[in-house]
Amino acid sequence: MEIAVVTGNPKPASRTLDAAKLVADRLGCPSPNVVVDVVDLGAGLLGWGDPAVAAAVEAVRASPVVVFASPTYKATYTGLLKLFLDQFPADGLTDVVAVPLMLGAGPAHALAPELLLKPVLIELGATCPTRALYLIDSDYSNAAVLDPWAARAIPQITACSRQEVR
Amino acid sequence: MEIAVVTGNPKPASRTLDAAKLVADRLGCPSPNVVVDVVDLGAGLLGWGDPAVAAAVEAVRASPVVVFASPTYKATYTGLLKLFLDQFPADGLTDVVAVPLMLGAGPAHALAPELLLKPVLIELGATCPTRALYLIDSDYSNAAVLDPWAARAIPQITACSRQEVR
Amino acid sequence: MEIAVVTGNPKPASRTLDAAKLVADRLGCPSPNVVVDVVDLGAGLLGWGDPAVAAAVEAVRASPVVVFASPTYKATYTGLLKLFLDQFPADGLTDVVAVPLMLGAGPAHALAPELLLKPVLIELGATCPTRALYLIDSDYSNAAVLDPWAARAIPQITACSRQEVR
Amino acid sequence: MEIAVVTGNPKPASRTLDAAKLVADRLGCPSPNVVVDVVDLGAGLLGWGDPAVAAAVEAVRASPVVVFASPTYKATYTGLLKLFLDQFPADGLTDVVAVPLMLGAGPAHALAPELLLKPVLIELGATCPTRALYLIDSDYSNAAVLDPWAARAIPQITACSRQEVR
Repeated sequence: MEIAVVTGNPKPASRTLDAAKLVADRLGCPSPNVVVDVVDLGAGLLGWGDPAVAAAVEAVRASPVVVFASPTYKATYTGLLKLFLDQFPADGLTDVVAVPLMLGAGPAHALAPELLLKPVLIELGATCPTRALYLIDSDYSNAAVLDPWAARAIPQITACSRQEVR
Repeated sequence: MEIAVVTGNPKPASRTLDAAKLVADRLGCPSPNVVVDVVDLGAGLLGWGDPAVAAAVEAVRASPVVVFASPTYKATYTGLLKLFLDQFPADGLTDVVAVPLMLGAGPAHALAPELLLKPVLIELGATCPTRALYLIDSDYSNAAVLDPWAARAIPQITACSRQEVR
Repeated sequence: MEIAVVTGNPKPASRTLDAAKLVADRLGCPSPNVVVDVVDLGAGLLGWGDPAVAAAVEAVRASPVVVFASPTYKATYTGLLKLFLDQFPADGLTDVVAVPLMLGAGPAHALAPELLLKPVLIELGATCPTRALYLIDSDYSNAAVLDPWAARAIPQITACSRQEVR
Repeated sequence: MEIAVVTGNPKPASRTLDAAKLVADRLGCPSPNVVVDVVDLGAGLLGWGDPAVAAAVEAVRASPVVVFASPTYKATYTGLLKLFLDQFPADGLTDVVAVPLMLGAGPAHALAPELLLKPVLIELGATCPTRALYLIDSDYSNAAVLDPWAARAIPQITACSRQEVR
């Protein structure tokens, strides 16, 4: 399965990015062709029409499945990730199956990806058939969390992305 | 497609029920076999182990697709609908594709089904591949709203319910 | 300070009620005059116009400060608590300073009182100046949680309830 | 009353800024000393330690009352506003009474400031005693909306900011 990865951590090459790639791997894509570490886009994110930002947006829109990952800042996703999502046109994720992923230092913010991140992706027109995923950042590869989540998510994503459902 | 309908309006045979049936019809089920007008279950909802409540829960759990409908009370779903959902065991909707539907008097609460009702269904283990639907109660059959929603929802529901994805 | 307590646990005389009374005590009211254990209201909650329900609603509306407490069911407040809140008229809590309190078995749902319960009270017109409170049900009297919360909440509640601010 | 204004619109000197100033005016501050049009901070927002960003954060933290305003992008506040809020330390708004304000093109996103923006400010430790405010951007000075909101908000803000409540 071809899966793109988008990460909104202000630190480049973060644990968030590692976790997002791990999730893509667990979903069946060990080597994503499209990886957007949003911080690399720099100041072009603050305006409109930057070519690198536009190229990243188009690459994401052309991906059948995308993991959108963020660390937890102030009990929700980062401004950096939202800055990138704000660059998409209305219904800009209509052809995308999106997987919301957040990492946090502890369990207290575990509801954030379902209550806060998934609705932004839905507003952009994405299909989000899976449960949103929350991982503890110091233990993000914990199989006891990832295995049951992936067991349900894989057929949900497969069903929605394989066919002309979006 | 077999689709069950669950309605949490304190008034029996409400406009909410009509709208939920209309949505089921638009999704391909003109005559639902399972229709739970929660108010009919009465005081058994206030405790545990009532046979009629248990039968309703089981009928819903056995349905491949379920529309969960509520009017908007205090900017969210009704206590009555939640009372019924509280009767389900943990992960009680694991085998169900659920469609969140809310009706309101005006557009101000349009975010409620996505931000508030869908997460309860997700917590119960349901697969919710569609956008949550909000309808104006005085105009719930408005084709300009229902047509584009159904055009996207039908393939999403079909994909997730046809296969062993849940 | 006079503080009322409302508890929406389907089990009468629950730990939720104990915790709500403890919070009222910590806020300066060791013996609340108004205690509504919603489950005691029974089937009258399912319709409109029940005298005992109406009396409970009026007692709550006449209280300057009210703790609204619920266990966590399906990652949010109970249907039982919402059933009681649905009995209030529009802006029915305009003269009330409300404190949202939820108890859960673990920390994963800690965002629920702030994101889900407080907005219902706000919609009813209540003034909610404090942070919503989430307590672990097996450890609800934990001073490490209650002390810093109360230290901030007491002056916030005092300020909003002492004056004609509501 | 001294009230600061923070605006997270990617367009400088936007209608959002005008509306935020109008709200401050209606709350009793016709000439705010602290006005942060976040977009003016530029690329310093994308890292840590930028002096202009740090100065803006400190000015906001030193303000007794702050209006935080955003247009509605993707059914919630902008990434730009969140980027600025991400610059605050934990509990960085402990001494601030915060007023969440969002503007949108239509009423469908009216729940966003209460459900989405206020919780971020609460997480930062702010006291948020008022109802969050949502204004239609083409009609943001509508007295029928502003007057009743301000009539309730002014005493709530006064009570919480006048005393050592935060």
